[in-house]
Amino acid sequence: MTTIADATEEELDAVLAAARSAAGPFAAERPAVRAGRLRSVADALDAAADVLVPLAEDESHLPEVRLRGELARTTFQIRFLADVLEDGSYLEAIIDTADPDAQPTPRPEVRRQLHPLGPVLVFAASNFPFAFSVAGGDTASALAAGCPVVLKAHPGHPELSRRTGDIVSGALREAGAPEGSFQVVFGLDAGRQALLDPRVRAGAFTGSVGVGRALFDLAASRAEPIPFYGELGSLNPVFVTPSAVEARGAEIVRGYVASFTMGVGQFCTKPGLLFLPRGHGLVDELAEQVRQVPAAPMLNDRIRSGYQSGLESAAGVGGVRVVVGGEPTGDLMAPTLVTVSVPDLLAAGDSLLTECFGPMSIVVEYDGDEQALAAAEAFEGNLTATLHTEDGDPVASPLLERLRERAGRLICNGWPTGVSVTWGMHHGGPYPATTAPLHTSVGGTAIGRFLRPVCYQNVPQALLPEALRDANQLGIPRRVNGTMTSADVAGT
Amino acid sequence: MTTIADATEEELDAVLAAARSAAGPFAAERPAVRAGRLRSVADALDAAADVLVPLAEDESHLPEVRLRGELARTTFQIRFLADVLEDGSYLEAIIDTADPDAQPTPRPEVRRQLHPLGPVLVFAASNFPFAFSVAGGDTASALAAGCPVVLKAHPGHPELSRRTGDIVSGALREAGAPEGSFQVVFGLDAGRQALLDPRVRAGAFTGSVGVGRALFDLAASRAEPIPFYGELGSLNPVFVTPSAVEARGAEIVRGYVASFTMGVGQFCTKPGLLFLPRGHGLVDELAEQVRQVPAAPMLNDRIRSGYQSGLESAAGVGGVRVVVGGEPTGDLMAPTLVTVSVPDLLAAGDSLLTECFGPMSIVVEYDGDEQALAAAEAFEGNLTATLHTEDGDPVASPLLERLRERAGRLICNGWPTGVSVTWGMHHGGPYPATTAPLHTSVGGTAIGRFLRPVCYQNVPQALLPEALRDANQLGIPRRVNGTMTSADVAGT
Repeated sequence: MTTIADATEEELDAVLAAARSAAGPFAAERPAVRAGRLRSVADALDAAADVLVPLAEDESHLPEVRLRGELARTTFQIRFLADVLEDGSYLEAIIDTADPDAQPTPRPEVRRQLHPLGPVLVFAASNFPFAFSVAGGDTASALAAGCPVVLKAHPGHPELSRRTGDIVSGALREAGAPEGSFQVVFGLDAGRQALLDPRVRAGAFTGSVGVGRALFDLAASRAEPIPFYGELGSLNPVFVTPSAVEARGAEIVRGYVASFTMGVGQFCTKPGLLFLPRGHGLVDELAEQVRQVPAAPMLNDRIRSGYQSGLESAAGVGGVRVVVGGEPTGDLMAPTLVTVSVPDLLAAGDSLLTECFGPMSIVVEYDGDEQALAAAEAFEGNLTATLHTEDGDPVASPLLERLRERAGRLICNGWPTGVSVTWGMHHGGPYPATTAPLHTSVGGTAIGRFLRPVCYQNVPQALLPEALRDANQLGIPRRVNGTMTSADVAGT
Repeated sequence: MTTIADATEEELDAVLAAARSAAGPFAAERPAVRAGRLRSVADALDAAADVLVPLAEDESHLPEVRLRGELARTTFQIRFLADVLEDGSYLEAIIDTADPDAQPTPRPEVRRQLHPLGPVLVFAASNFPFAFSVAGGDTASALAAGCPVVLKAHPGHPELSRRTGDIVSGALREAGAPEGSFQVVFGLDAGRQALLDPRVRAGAFTGSVGVGRALFDLAASRAEPIPFYGELGSLNPVFVTPSAVEARGAEIVRGYVASFTMGVGQFCTKPGLLFLPRGHGLVDELAEQVRQVPAAPMLNDRIRSGYQSGLESAAGVGGVRVVVGGEPTGDLMAPTLVTVSVPDLLAAGDSLLTECFGPMSIVVEYDGDEQALAAAEAFEGNLTATLHTEDGDPVASPLLERLRERAGRLICNGWPTGVSVTWGMHHGGPYPATTAPLHTSVGGTAIGRFLRPVCYQNVPQALLPEALRDANQLGIPRRVNGTMTSADVAGT
C-alpha cells in the first residue's frame, strides 16, 4: 500500500492558515453560488469513478459494485445539500420588527440568521471510503454550511484519499471557491494538533469509541472548547415480537443475516443483537442462512484483529452458545452467530453490550414481554433500534418508547443498514452513538452542525446580510413577527 | 439572610429519582397541554409579586422598580414559550414519503421530529433573581421542551429561591403536571453530584467563567457526556466611529454611562469597553455623567470583593488612566471609568480583556480605522458587540464583519443591556460567552437546547407520535417531501 508522509508541523500550519484565510470569503458567498460549487465537486467525482473505484477496491478490499453504489450515494448527498442551500430555510432567518408599544418593554428590531462557524476539521472513516471519508457527509455538510474543511485522511485508504482530495480541491478551485476551502492532511498527530489549534472551530469524526472519545476529550480540553461531532459506537438492537415471528419468521431471518453480514459487518448500523421470543424455532434457519454467506476480506489488519479479539471475548461469556463459528480462511472472514438468553445478556453487561465491529451478531432469546422490555432498558445510546411486529401487538408501543429514549432512528419491519439521504433522515443518537445527540451526520439537517446564530439589533439595511434585508434578495423562507413567510415574500 | 441546608445525598437521590420518573409522562403531554401548564406558572408568579419582590429586594439589594420589571419580563418569557409550543414549528417535523423509484437507491418512508432530552439540571444566577434564576429562561425553556427541571438555587437569594420554587412546583402540580417536573435543590456539592448523575441529561448555567468552566469540564468528564449550556463571561465591546461622535457624541456618552452602570454594572451584557476615535473630546462629558450616577449596593459580598480586586488589577495596567475612581461608601459602590489606548490595550491582553463584573468600564482611544479593526480582532467570544455609526461610514462594514465572528448579537446605534424576548433574539456567542455557540438562552429558539431529533423509518401510523401521523392531529407546520406545509395541512 502507498505510504504518504504525515504532515509536518510547518505543513500543518500552512494548511490551517489557508483554511483560516478562506473562511471569510467562503462564508460570504451566496448560498446559490456555494450550491454551484458543490455540484461541480459531485460532477468531478462522478467523472473520476473509473479511477477512484479501482483504487478503493485495492485499498479497502470492498467489491466494485458496492463501491460504485457508495460513490453514487456520495455524490447524490453532495447534490442534495446543494438543494438544501437553494431552499434557504437552513439559514433559519427570523425578523422581528420594532414595537415601541410592546409589553412589558418596548421591543427593538431583531433579525437573526445562521452563519458558518469557520474552519472544520473532519476525521475520515475507514469503512465507507467514499460516503464517510474525504468527500463524505461531514465534508459535504461543512462545505455546504460555508466552512473551509481540513480533512484528516484515514490511513486505511491513503492513495484514494489523496486522489479524492485532489479532485475535490481541484473542482472547488476551478469553480472559483477561495484557495484553502478544502485541504487533506495525513497523520494522527497532525489531526490531534489541528484539533487543538485555535483556527479550527469544530471537529467531526466517525470511528471507534476509543479514538473518538480521546478526540472529544481533546476538543473539550481546549482553552476555547469547540463543538465536536463524533460518531463512535452503536449496537443497533432489533426486537422481534411473537406475532412477527409467526407471520414472517423465515423472511426476518433472511433480512437479518443479510443486514448483519453486509459489508462484512463493518457498518455502524449493523444489527448487533436480534431479540427473538423463546421458542421461536428459527435457529436452524438462522444457521443455514449464515453458513451460506461467503467469506470476504475485512477492511484492514487492525480492524480484523480487533474483530477477532472481540469475537473471542464474546464467545467466552457465560451462557453464550456459538451457533455458527465463522472461521478465517486466509484473508477471508466468514460470519459468526451466537445466542444468549436475556438474563445471561444482562448479567454479562458490557462484555456483550459493546460494539464488535465485523460480521458477528447475537441472537438473544427473551421469555415474555417483561424480559423484552427489561432488555430494551439495558442499552446505552444507539444510532438505530428496530422493531419487527404485526399490527395490534400490545408490546410494540412500550417497546418502541423505551427504544426511542436510546436511539436516533427507529425502524419498523425493516433493517438499519442503508441510511437514506433525505430531508428527515437522522443519523445520530445519545452517547456513545455520538458525542452530540442534538445533531445528525446525514440528511437535510446535517448542515446545522456547522452554523451558529447571530442576531442583528437595529442594524441598518445596508449593513445587514442579504438574507435579512427587507427585500429578501435571496428569496428564502423567513419567520416575520412570528409567522412563517414563503420564499417569495419580500419586505417586513 | 436565611440559611437553607444543602441537600443531603439521600435528598438529592430522591429528587433525581422523581425527575427521572416524571420525564416519560411529562414528555408525552401534548405541546398545547404543556403550554397551559406554563401559563399557570406565569399566572401564579404574577399573583405572588407582592410576596416575591420584597424578598428579592431584601436578598439582592436591587431596587423594587427593577425587580417588578424583571418579574414581568420573566412571566412574559414563560408565556412567550407557551406561544412557541402552540406554534409547533419547534418540533421541526419532517416527513419524507417512500419512493421505490428514487435514485441512486429506493427511499423508505422517513419521519422526524424533536423529542425532549430528559431531566435538565439548571444552575441559577445571582444577578437576575427572577429572569435568570429559579423560574428564568433556562427553566422555562427546559419545561417548555418537556424536560423535568432540577434547579440548583443560587446562594445569593435562598429564601426567594425557595418561595419561587414552591410557587412553580405548586402551579405545575395544580395544573396536573407529573410530580417531579420541577424541584429545587440547595448546595454547590449537590449541584456537582447531580451534574455527574446518569439521570441528568443536560445542564444549563449562568455565572462566572471560573465556576462555569469547572462545571463544563465535569459534564464533559462523564462516562456519558451531556450537553452543557453555560453562559460565562462577556466584554461586550462598543465601537464608535468618528461620524457618530460628530453627529451625536453627547447622546452616546449618556447612553453608554446609563448602560454600563445599569444594575450596578452587574449585567452579562454590560458594555465593558467603549472604543472612541482619538480626539473625540468627550472625556469631560464622560466624567461628568459617571459622577452623576448614585452609588448603590452590589448583589453580595463575594461579587463586591471580586469586583474590587478586578478594578485594582485593571487600574494597575500600564497606560491605564483613571478618569473617575468610584469609591465605596459603606455598602454602596460608585462607578469607575478608566481610559487606555489601543496599543496599551493590546499589550495588556488578558489583564484588560477579561470581564470585570461590576460598575466599571474602559474607554479605549483608537488612532484611525486600522487600529479600530485590529482591536476588534483581539476579542474572544462575546454575547454582544455594538457599533455606533452614521450612514455611509466605510469602516462600518469591515468592523461589523470582525465583530460578527466574535459575538452572538450585533447592535447598531443602541446598547447591549436589555435583552428583548422575541422569536429571533440570540443570547449566546462563542466561548467564553457560552460553552455552546450554536444555542441561545433567550428567545424563541432557546427551547431547542433541550430537544434531540428522532427519526421513524417505516413506522406504522398507530405507533407514530401524533406530530408525525398523516392526519396532522396537532395542527403543526411540517416539511413534507422537501416542501414546507402550514399548520392546517393534513396527510402526506
